[in-house]
Amino acid sequence: MSTQGIVLFGHGARDPRWAEPFERLAERLRGAGAPAPLVSVAFLELMTPSLDAAVASQVAAGCTRITIVPVFFGQGGHVRRDLPQLVDACRAAHPGIEIRCATAVGEDDRVLDAIARYCLDQIGHDAQA
Amino acid sequence: MSTQGIVLFGHGARDPRWAEPFERLAERLRGAGAPAPLVSVAFLELMTPSLDAAVASQVAAGCTRITIVPVFFGQGGHVRRDLPQLVDACRAAHPGIEIRCATAVGEDDRVLDAIARYCLDQIGHDAQA
Repeated sequence: MSTQGIVLFGHGARDPRWAEPFERLAERLRGAGAPAPLVSVAFLELMTPSLDAAVASQVAAGCTRITIVPVFFGQGGHVRRDLPQLVDACRAAHPGIEIRCATAVGEDDRVLDAIARYCLDQIGHDAQA
Repeated sequence: MSTQGIVLFGHGARDPRWAEPFERLAERLRGAGAPAPLVSVAFLELMTPSLDAAVASQVAAGCTRITIVPVFFGQGGHVRRDLPQLVDACRAAHPGIEIRCATAVGEDDRVLDAIARYCLDQIGHDAQA
C-alpha cells in the first residue's frame, strides 16, 4: 500500500457533471508511478468530500505524506486565503503526517502549453503554441 | 491582420492575480501560428471585459471568425447554461460573423495529461501519467 497521497482540490459546482474531469484526472494518477499514490478528490463547496474529510480518509488508509494540489487556474482568493486555512486545520488534526500544498495547476507552464495547444486546435492551427 | 479571433472565457474572481494565467495563456497564443490569431480574454463575472464586449472588440478589429474557448475545468452550469445564452446574444449582435464555442479545456485529454504530470512532479514521481 502506498503511503503517499494526492488530494485533488477543486472548487465544486452544483452540476455533478462538472466533476467529471476531476475523476478522470484521479484515474490517470491512480495508474501512475510505482507505488501508485492514493488519490482523492476534495471540494471547497457544493460538492463532497470536503478537504478535511478527504485528508482524514487518506490518513486512515495509512498515508503519511499527503500532497494537496489545487485544481484551479489561478491563485485567487480561494487558493490564497481559503485553502491555507483548510490546510492548517488538516495539519492540526493530523500531527505527524506531512501535509504539503502545491501551487495551482493553472500556474504550471506545461499545463498552459497544453491549454494553448488545445485552443489552436480549435481554430485549425498546427499545435505549436 | 488576422481575421481569426480567440476569446479565452473564464469565470472571473475578486483577486486580480487570479487572471494571471489567462494573460500568460493569451500571450502564448498571440505568438502562435501564421497569421497569429487575435486573442482576447473575457469573464463571466467579477472581472472585465464581458464576453459580449470582447467579441464586439474583435469584430471591430476585423475578425470574421471568432472561437470562444471556455477556460474551465468542467462543463458545469456556467458552461452548459450561462455560456450558450451569452454566445447566442453575441451571434444575434453580429450576424455574418462566424462565432463558435469550444468544449471546456479541462475536458481535453492532453490538458488532463499535463495536469497529471504536474501532480506527479509534486510528489517526486517520474512524469509518466
